[in-house]
Amino acid sequence: MQKVAVAGVGMTKFGCSQKSQVEMFAEAAMDALVGSNLEPKDVQALFVGNVMGDFTEGQLNIAAFCASELGLSVNAPAVRVEGACASASVAIREAYNWIASGVYDIILVGGTERCLTMDTSLATRTFAMGSDSRYEVFNGLTFPGVFGMAAHLYSDKYQVPLSTLSEAMARVAVKNHKNGAKNPLAQFQKEISVETVQKSAMIADPLRLFDCCPFSDGAAAIVLASEKVIHKLTDKPVYILGVGQAHGGPLYRQKDITRIRAREASAAQAYEMAGLTPGDMDVCELHDCFTIAEILAVEGLGFYTPGKGYTSVMNNETGLDGKIAVNPSGGLKAKGHPIGATGAAQAFEIVNQLRGECGERQVKGAKRGITDTLGGDLGTIVNIIYGV
Amino acid sequence: MQKVAVAGVGMTKFGCSQKSQVEMFAEAAMDALVGSNLEPKDVQALFVGNVMGDFTEGQLNIAAFCASELGLSVNAPAVRVEGACASASVAIREAYNWIASGVYDIILVGGTERCLTMDTSLATRTFAMGSDSRYEVFNGLTFPGVFGMAAHLYSDKYQVPLSTLSEAMARVAVKNHKNGAKNPLAQFQKEISVETVQKSAMIADPLRLFDCCPFSDGAAAIVLASEKVIHKLTDKPVYILGVGQAHGGPLYRQKDITRIRAREASAAQAYEMAGLTPGDMDVCELHDCFTIAEILAVEGLGFYTPGKGYTSVMNNETGLDGKIAVNPSGGLKAKGHPIGATGAAQAFEIVNQLRGECGERQVKGAKRGITDTLGGDLGTIVNIIYGV
Repeated sequence: MQKVAVAGVGMTKFGCSQKSQVEMFAEAAMDALVGSNLEPKDVQALFVGNVMGDFTEGQLNIAAFCASELGLSVNAPAVRVEGACASASVAIREAYNWIASGVYDIILVGGTERCLTMDTSLATRTFAMGSDSRYEVFNGLTFPGVFGMAAHLYSDKYQVPLSTLSEAMARVAVKNHKNGAKNPLAQFQKEISVETVQKSAMIADPLRLFDCCPFSDGAAAIVLASEKVIHKLTDKPVYILGVGQAHGGPLYRQKDITRIRAREASAAQAYEMAGLTPGDMDVCELHDCFTIAEILAVEGLGFYTPGKGYTSVMNNETGLDGKIAVNPSGGLKAKGHPIGATGAAQAFEIVNQLRGECGERQVKGAKRGITDTLGGDLGTIVNIIYGV
Repeated sequence: MQKVAVAGVGMTKFGCSQKSQVEMFAEAAMDALVGSNLEPKDVQALFVGNVMGDFTEGQLNIAAFCASELGLSVNAPAVRVEGACASASVAIREAYNWIASGVYDIILVGGTERCLTMDTSLATRTFAMGSDSRYEVFNGLTFPGVFGMAAHLYSDKYQVPLSTLSEAMARVAVKNHKNGAKNPLAQFQKEISVETVQKSAMIADPLRLFDCCPFSDGAAAIVLASEKVIHKLTDKPVYILGVGQAHGGPLYRQKDITRIRAREASAAQAYEMAGLTPGDMDVCELHDCFTIAEILAVEGLGFYTPGKGYTSVMNNETGLDGKIAVNPSGGLKAKGHPIGATGAAQAFEIVNQLRGECGERQVKGAKRGITDTLGGDLGTIVNIIYGV
């Protein structure tokens, strides 16, 4: 197996776009290619994460159309993968293996999604297709409902008063908005207060509006290259040190939704492959689709023991200068969440952090970072560890 | 790279099913696992082709739910891929590489789709999402329209009178129904005549009803295993000798839709990797979504020179005892076409043919076979060569 590195990265501004999903992807991809000193003809394969291009634009088979829009060689396979909100991270892991195995040296990979310019009154219901259609969607369960339940279960299991947990959740939102305010590509670039969160509308008890990430349009892309060619493309390679992916399945098969088994399995795969531990990570982009989700994720990734994740924000340990910087980009909460693109946007941030190119939101001396992407309520988890 | 073999195969009857897509997949997968002397816990990763489970059942992230239904280990990544009607073949190629690269030894891969029990009055329009939404679907183009145009262009370019071409097309249908009549899993198990085709309703000139494959429900699955473990699983291994995949893109980027560049590129990749030529193939399962598509495919795969593919059926050269047996299963035309499952069903047939287990429709002495799967009008092509 040969080593795999990121050569270049690209990302559209997240928020509301007038472009199609193919056009957004092409914008991000051209930035990633230019940043890698490559032309489209150099790309040997393409992987695209996309969740519901058929619903939003009537477009299936989207990877082939992205390839054609960019002018890739007809010989380049173009593969769409879908693992709900983890789609782009699934794509990165697939691309990783095609280079690690020595078949290809240069692969373009990313994701694209239109969520904001669809009818957002239907968005929550549409997104719910990422959970089990037979027993969950059928009964009206949506993602805010799942994570609202998880918050109550967490409060009960660990005897954390709901008022304390709600404050911690609000502080997750405050931290991520503070980071997003320093990110010119973020959907929300405005700081908020704990009061902003706690006075916002109730969505799914105890989750309020500002506990929820927004609907977003956007795309992100990265170029992966083999160790053989990476030094011709960039003098700032960022290596993929470990990858992990695991599956959960429907909620009724879970023992405890406050501890996502699939995340623990996936993270263990990635740490073992990298030969690293949670304590070795300097920076983390994780799946804060709801504020409680960040608290569960810092535990699942091994930064905090179960039941102590909420202290991360209470003790200001996950800010830009904390013991582990979590979601310096603003996370899904402030940067935005164009679902099929999110995993690639997380990679975009980690790579820029490890290159020391994040300006005001730079995590000082960051050498190793991890991404965490969740698809569905608990269905698909991908973790990828990067290092310089 | 280690060699990759098929250990076992499974397939539901194609046609109309009362099961969900996950349940159909589990049925096919359990047959493939039992045929491989394996249990679900032995599976290290899962790849599932599915095109529009969100439209038909409100189900995204379907690979994770298939994995959970089967009781796979949480550590097994479950990946859905979508390349329109080529989805399951894309899945097989991805799975192939994870074993070839030495990461895994046992992978379950296949596809599942519900097309018949959806509202079929919308099916053609829904399927059209596999072509370009901005310039094709938007203007009302559907797949019957594309292949109707291809037939007219073929007739004009090669000066084959439309009456001759139409007869050849009808003979494709007659041949594939004759084969399907010998396949207990086929949707249509009834022979037809040239007259049946030529008296059927006009769909998209010159394509008549019996020039078109049906809508179908169904699933198929295969178990791939490394050369290290294959001999513990079966005494009839069938090896994957070559894989190819290429992308086309929208019609307006094509020079000539009677010659699908992506197929020629993909087939060349597969033949080169296998070190074989078209003349080495004994049996072929190809993408006869319309009868004209089989004529184009036998040319694209190198069995006939461009403009001569129609002679394959006029001279009875592609029957079970012809120079190359094409679609012994009945093909999409008679076996049926549950779109996300089709590539895996092609693999199912080729593996059974190379094992000599096809009974009445057995191609005598078949040692090498190729599958050909087309996604969209010309968007995605995958070819896989199998041998014993």
